[in-house]
Amino acid sequence: METLIDGVFAIAMTLLVLDFKVPTIPEGSSVDALPKLILALWPNFFNYVQSFMLLGLFWIVHHRQFDCIKFIDHGLLWLNIGSLMFIALIPFSTSLIAQYGDVQIGAVIFECNLLVIGCFLYVQWWYVTRKRHLLDPNLSEQKIILIRKRNLFVPIVSLVAIGISFVNPEWSEVPYFAVPLIMIKYRWRR
Amino acid sequence: METLIDGVFAIAMTLLVLDFKVPTIPEGSSVDALPKLILALWPNFFNYVQSFMLLGLFWIVHHRQFDCIKFIDHGLLWLNIGSLMFIALIPFSTSLIAQYGDVQIGAVIFECNLLVIGCFLYVQWWYVTRKRHLLDPNLSEQKIILIRKRNLFVPIVSLVAIGISFVNPEWSEVPYFAVPLIMIKYRWRR
Amino acid sequence: METLIDGVFAIAMTLLVLDFKVPTIPEGSSVDALPKLILALWPNFFNYVQSFMLLGLFWIVHHRQFDCIKFIDHGLLWLNIGSLMFIALIPFSTSLIAQYGDVQIGAVIFECNLLVIGCFLYVQWWYVTRKRHLLDPNLSEQKIILIRKRNLFVPIVSLVAIGISFVNPEWSEVPYFAVPLIMIKYRWRR
Amino acid sequence: METLIDGVFAIAMTLLVLDFKVPTIPEGSSVDALPKLILALWPNFFNYVQSFMLLGLFWIVHHRQFDCIKFIDHGLLWLNIGSLMFIALIPFSTSLIAQYGDVQIGAVIFECNLLVIGCFLYVQWWYVTRKRHLLDPNLSEQKIILIRKRNLFVPIVSLVAIGISFVNPEWSEVPYFAVPLIMIKYRWRR
Repeated sequence: METLIDGVFAIAMTLLVLDFKVPTIPEGSSVDALPKLILALWPNFFNYVQSFMLLGLFWIVHHRQFDCIKFIDHGLLWLNIGSLMFIALIPFSTSLIAQYGDVQIGAVIFECNLLVIGCFLYVQWWYVTRKRHLLDPNLSEQKIILIRKRNLFVPIVSLVAIGISFVNPEWSEVPYFAVPLIMIKYRWRR
Repeated sequence: METLIDGVFAIAMTLLVLDFKVPTIPEGSSVDALPKLILALWPNFFNYVQSFMLLGLFWIVHHRQFDCIKFIDHGLLWLNIGSLMFIALIPFSTSLIAQYGDVQIGAVIFECNLLVIGCFLYVQWWYVTRKRHLLDPNLSEQKIILIRKRNLFVPIVSLVAIGISFVNPEWSEVPYFAVPLIMIKYRWRR
Repeated sequence: METLIDGVFAIAMTLLVLDFKVPTIPEGSSVDALPKLILALWPNFFNYVQSFMLLGLFWIVHHRQFDCIKFIDHGLLWLNIGSLMFIALIPFSTSLIAQYGDVQIGAVIFECNLLVIGCFLYVQWWYVTRKRHLLDPNLSEQKIILIRKRNLFVPIVSLVAIGISFVNPEWSEVPYFAVPLIMIKYRWRR
Repeated sequence: METLIDGVFAIAMTLLVLDFKVPTIPEGSSVDALPKLILALWPNFFNYVQSFMLLGLFWIVHHRQFDCIKFIDHGLLWLNIGSLMFIALIPFSTSLIAQYGDVQIGAVIFECNLLVIGCFLYVQWWYVTRKRHLLDPNLSEQKIILIRKRNLFVPIVSLVAIGISFVNPEWSEVPYFAVPLIMIKYRWRR
């Protein structure tokens, strides 16, 4: 299972680069044109970094949860395939937001994609904690609850982002900057 | 072998996303345009989900069979490369059916692709059960027969779908909805 | 190392599918148009199968050789990266031959690609047999020579194919059909 | 972690091939046209080989460093995701330099990409040597310093290349030829 998951994450991450189209550089343009070029590539690059780091985050969360899981059953298998289905969609919704980030629709679709992934990770954890025999028996009750709470971040942040997109789509991605901050805070407490 | 198989599955799954083309959203369109956009993306999304889940299913079936196999010989190696060849075709036949699902030819090619994969999985199991020394010796005769029967589902369903496509190509994919149902039924009996 | 190798092979295999372009099917065309469509896709499909099986073959040869290798040194690492470089080129040279198989240049480039891969595999084996400490000490002298001989097939067949391409490019791929036959013959003797 | 890293490297390497566009070969052109064709493909091929080998080099350096690391913490995880982010950019900056290698901007962006990767590898090593508990305890102080010094090569060479690009962009990639030479020299001394 892990090879498939890592494979899908690795490909989704690398496909993000296909969004970058080689720009047309006018012949004989000197280094003075560099700032203009960088400005033209900037929204692409910003979205690339953002999606890459979100995929990195999901990958870490995914693996943290799997480290606590000892057995896999049929339901968990399909929950995973479901979450991979939306992970693999990220390159599409990223290229959507790179082109239409200022239109609300583009932002909403991107944020819904993240919302669905967040929900899948939450449901996955709920599923394995309900069926305790799948879990590592040494796992403390405290850690189970901590992970459950942490899994709420991405869905909540996504909902806030969707809400903001109704007011101003361009600023709707700002809440995602909170994710790493909250992650770090929880790490210390562990 | 497993790394190659998982790799091909992961890439085939993720390449499905390349079918999604970023649609042109008219400037300044509000969230009211969202339903129209979703409707335009709908056939793509439906086919994406369908192919992703079928690939997920084939991946599970593949691994279930490999868990029972202890040794690999030259024939099994080539049977696997053959089945991977048609697994890797799924992104193509999916984009074909997404564009031409209402034309019979598109549907037939997609369903033939699934038929061939189903047959490969059936032949693979027949091959290893004939050469018993490749199998896990602890495997019960009952389970061998159960897996053999289960492997008939995809080919049979594909044949039914091809038959329906002669009457109405748009409805020909309906039989595939039966696959998960039968899978679940067989799981309980195991 | 093996994960990287398997990854490159899996991606090269799956990228072959990108050569298939969804053809334009005229609206309302019935199943009668199927033969015409299949004929149009046929050269693509033929080349897809051929390249997929050649990649499968190289993958098997690669792994057979690696099974005999116990340690990896810096030279072997770079020989591998070199051979992967030409493995990853296969999707390009396949799409070249699919479009220009009847022109000699297309055929020659494809066959040169295979020639280089064959040579890399030969040199790789020569390298590890020269530095015996990298090899599994239980390997018999006989098997070392057998593998060395077998590694000559692809280069020789490629040279023959390049020769034929000067006379008739369309038939120049025929010699490759001999590869599996010789492989099977050598397997029995092992 | 290693599967994700190897996956990203394998995909980045293989995506390089997408830069090769099938050229239009005039009908009925004989083998005499081959030199012209090869000349047309030459800049692409040169950049393909260069980027493939640089990715190979980074992959080797990455793994050498990971062989010395026994534990992974949160910071190291994100340093890795960061370096993968720029590894996955290589196919883009390669296609940029293949098209605009003679314009300074193209060369500068490619070289900045390599500079960033080099810096990430340097920082990574600095990070694990600062937090000694992540390292293999058997590692000698001498080797730690050797690896630290070796990690300076790519950043220094990239800075030199960026400097040269201000004078002559076409020659700015020459310093990278020094990398393998220095690598070999350090290998002997180890």
